[in-house]
Amino acid sequence: MVTMTAGQRRSAEQAAYDAFLATCPAREVLGVISDKWTGLVVVALLPGPRRYSELRREIAGVSQKMLTQTLRSLERDGMVTRTVTAGVPVRVDYELTPLGERLGGVLRAVKAFAEANIAEITAARAAYDARADD
Amino acid sequence: MVTMTAGQRRSAEQAAYDAFLATCPAREVLGVISDKWTGLVVVALLPGPRRYSELRREIAGVSQKMLTQTLRSLERDGMVTRTVTAGVPVRVDYELTPLGERLGGVLRAVKAFAEANIAEITAARAAYDARADD
Repeated sequence: MVTMTAGQRRSAEQAAYDAFLATCPAREVLGVISDKWTGLVVVALLPGPRRYSELRREIAGVSQKMLTQTLRSLERDGMVTRTVTAGVPVRVDYELTPLGERLGGVLRAVKAFAEANIAEITAARAAYDARADD
Repeated sequence: MVTMTAGQRRSAEQAAYDAFLATCPAREVLGVISDKWTGLVVVALLPGPRRYSELRREIAGVSQKMLTQTLRSLERDGMVTRTVTAGVPVRVDYELTPLGERLGGVLRAVKAFAEANIAEITAARAAYDARADD
């Protein structure tokens, strides 16, 4: 029996799956993780567990429906665990799994890219729109 | 006059913009770059310029409408340049700008994450759905 380390197994899977192919399951997963709300929620959970109300405050403007839906999808995908503590009111905590932490590292870079390149993108848009108006 | 390097300017901007805030322009930009098709197109352009028809072939299943819309948005945001060469038929090439190349590096990691973690995500989904059926 050939035993692979987790790293070797991931490399082998990476070679086997290709999101450029419409029929590859990686295409669907890429669609789920390439989502603005997924990124914001996962990055907000990177420092540690958060209650639902804390997430709603930190991610300004997220609707209750969108936050609930995003958290449920992340839980189903094995990125987040949900812990309910009895009490009045009931307390619900969300925490990244090791898989979710790895996703958080990747999506933190996407968020940082947006924040770091605003000026350049805004200037490019203004120039493009000015050309289009000619 | 204080002169900053491009890197220092980006760090200063990164500190000034915060996609967690609903009113921050970084939130809107994050929405644009957190898109499955944006990721696939930018990563497909990383090796070098591609013609429109080559992109359609490489990104299997992308509709003409979606590819055209994604390329136009990337051009407007300063990530991609579009070069038209006269001839029959007209030849149109797309190429990443330096900004687009940096975005490509970030989004390649998102695509690689999806491809490398399919097995773990699929197993998590099956377990979640089995619990939900109880």
